[in-house]
Amino acid sequence: MISQRMGKRISQKGGIRQAYNEAQRQYEIYGKENVFDLSIGNPSVPAPDKVKETILKVLEDDFSHGYMSDAGYEDTRRKIAESLNRKYEETYTGDDIVMTNGAAGGINCTLCALLDPGDEVILFRPYYTAYEGFIENWGGKAVTVSPKGEEFLPDYEELEQRITQRTKVVIVNSPHNPSGTIYPKETAEKIARILEKKEQELGHEIYLLSDEPYRELVYDGTHLPWWPHEYRDTIVAYSFSKSLSLAGERIGYLLIPPHIGDAKNVMRAVRSSMGKIGYVNAPALFQKVAGDCVDETVDLKYYKKNRDLLYQTLKRFGFTAVYPRGAFYIFVKCPINEEEFLIRAQNRHFIFVGGSSFDYPGYVRLSFCCKQEVIERAVPAFELLARDCGLISG
Amino acid sequence: MISQRMGKRISQKGGIRQAYNEAQRQYEIYGKENVFDLSIGNPSVPAPDKVKETILKVLEDDFSHGYMSDAGYEDTRRKIAESLNRKYEETYTGDDIVMTNGAAGGINCTLCALLDPGDEVILFRPYYTAYEGFIENWGGKAVTVSPKGEEFLPDYEELEQRITQRTKVVIVNSPHNPSGTIYPKETAEKIARILEKKEQELGHEIYLLSDEPYRELVYDGTHLPWWPHEYRDTIVAYSFSKSLSLAGERIGYLLIPPHIGDAKNVMRAVRSSMGKIGYVNAPALFQKVAGDCVDETVDLKYYKKNRDLLYQTLKRFGFTAVYPRGAFYIFVKCPINEEEFLIRAQNRHFIFVGGSSFDYPGYVRLSFCCKQEVIERAVPAFELLARDCGLISG
Repeated sequence: MISQRMGKRISQKGGIRQAYNEAQRQYEIYGKENVFDLSIGNPSVPAPDKVKETILKVLEDDFSHGYMSDAGYEDTRRKIAESLNRKYEETYTGDDIVMTNGAAGGINCTLCALLDPGDEVILFRPYYTAYEGFIENWGGKAVTVSPKGEEFLPDYEELEQRITQRTKVVIVNSPHNPSGTIYPKETAEKIARILEKKEQELGHEIYLLSDEPYRELVYDGTHLPWWPHEYRDTIVAYSFSKSLSLAGERIGYLLIPPHIGDAKNVMRAVRSSMGKIGYVNAPALFQKVAGDCVDETVDLKYYKKNRDLLYQTLKRFGFTAVYPRGAFYIFVKCPINEEEFLIRAQNRHFIFVGGSSFDYPGYVRLSFCCKQEVIERAVPAFELLARDCGLISG
Repeated sequence: MISQRMGKRISQKGGIRQAYNEAQRQYEIYGKENVFDLSIGNPSVPAPDKVKETILKVLEDDFSHGYMSDAGYEDTRRKIAESLNRKYEETYTGDDIVMTNGAAGGINCTLCALLDPGDEVILFRPYYTAYEGFIENWGGKAVTVSPKGEEFLPDYEELEQRITQRTKVVIVNSPHNPSGTIYPKETAEKIARILEKKEQELGHEIYLLSDEPYRELVYDGTHLPWWPHEYRDTIVAYSFSKSLSLAGERIGYLLIPPHIGDAKNVMRAVRSSMGKIGYVNAPALFQKVAGDCVDETVDLKYYKKNRDLLYQTLKRFGFTAVYPRGAFYIFVKCPINEEEFLIRAQNRHFIFVGGSSFDYPGYVRLSFCCKQEVIERAVPAFELLARDCGLISG
């Protein structure tokens, strides 16, 4: 006798979960080395050495592992603010930072702080569908905006139409899961102007929540706009899952700039939500790691090499895909019906996640955060899959 | 422009938060050594050596820090099940365990899995009021039952009256925060018989959720009943915060025994709620610590010594308090009005938490998980406070 909420949820086909189960099934039958699991965004590049060094250093000093302030350790928050100030020429302080359980934790706290039942949150398709569950937690309603053009930039007219009196939050995610695209500065500016105009019209804040777990994963020197420079009412959710390969440790932060509308209450509400949601505080030891390793990243060249090989392979065999300038995903157009394409891919021992799992059917997401050998070994299988789908003859 | 939910929450006087702020204020004025902060349950006894040893061992093996199954690492869950089997002569497996972000995380997942809006959760006064926020997250309604007698055992008649068609969950917490009492076996049996009878009448499960962060903190050889032996539909929420002094690391687990009603769906719903609430998975490295240190505890003699000194001091100066057989709290009857008593205590540099913060005015909670010196230094101040309140003359 479980809740209707969860009854519905567990009866739905979960694309990523389904992919995980399919991978386990194939591992057993064919052996792990003969399966090309490109489904999950679990970094295979090891954490920078400084992560381990920091843990050892912290443990030497009789670290207490106890509770601290709901916002996290003061020194960690100060170090993060200082790092942002160096990067973006800002003047943040530790008081503008709340340490969270990854970006997912930060997004949940923000939505808990801002949403009344019936309030609307705008999502740009395709999107990470976990957002829907987070919005539902606080009685909010997800409202979606379609992309326009090959780079999956938003349809600005549709965005303007979708904003109502109940719009409280707009979630942006660039570098983007599942497509790897990065919004150029003009896109950020256009979104900002629309939101500013609507704030004026409606007489209340529309907060832009920038979900930035892939912020450091940018290739080819692409410029990544800093949202707080573009739009006043920006809250940033960051995660060290990808930049430091710490996905399982659940460590990230929220930046709540002091100049956003009603900033003091937003900060108090977000901090208080840490207890209400049962996070209590972000994990203690990894807060220390985050503070000391804030300017470190994993070996990005590894991901770039993966990206290049995977993208070139896809193009070579006739697939159509968005060129990813960031993150570690490629969004590939299905040459045939999505469901049928996923089955044919599975028959070639590929594990992909269907675009339906990102509210965007007709595509599949391929993750390239796997080991290089997986992509190298997969090249012949991509050729066979292309033949299976009639992209190349033979 | 924050949500009404959080607007209300941050405007309320939070007893524990208020106590924290008062402590900080007094530290600055009088110096830390002259303030007797008995407010917060933040263990001062260091973690067992094996915690550090486990971390070092795990890091030597190129630990990945990546995502794992939403329920946690298989080896950790197996070790926990085996430990429970040794202790309670049970036959649990790792499949019955979900690793959670402390007990708070486990309670939230359980309530998310079970509660539809309007469903009722029974709490025994006095109680840890964070439960109210957790219940509210899922649209549930807290229904309270009063204690009877000096040991704060539940009023069974009232319990029976309070159960309705909407009752889904009953939360028990023994050893108890804030009173340190332990339900004897007869109490557990009486509660179980009432719930069984009501399950029959209502035709649906009433889950007993046993919140057990203090399970290992039992003194004087007191017997602690194991709830799953007493009542079929028991779910256990455990935390390593107190047993291993890891409060800030947010590590605990849920035990969902396979014989409870609708066990498979409850397990699936709880696991799925890990993602929905944004926990994703319990922190990776400390799962490994929990698995390897599951049979370790901090030095319980330290807490017992603190308990004895504090209880004897209170009695000596005429205070009335419940004798705590577990946890690390003493619940003291206010000799005068609670608010006035808290002020007089503050004037003597004591920081307590008022009983109002546990839905039980007229008492204060004193925590004895502090350093021994704090209680030793506080003895003369207790005498002065007793005089201030007319408990002793002079």
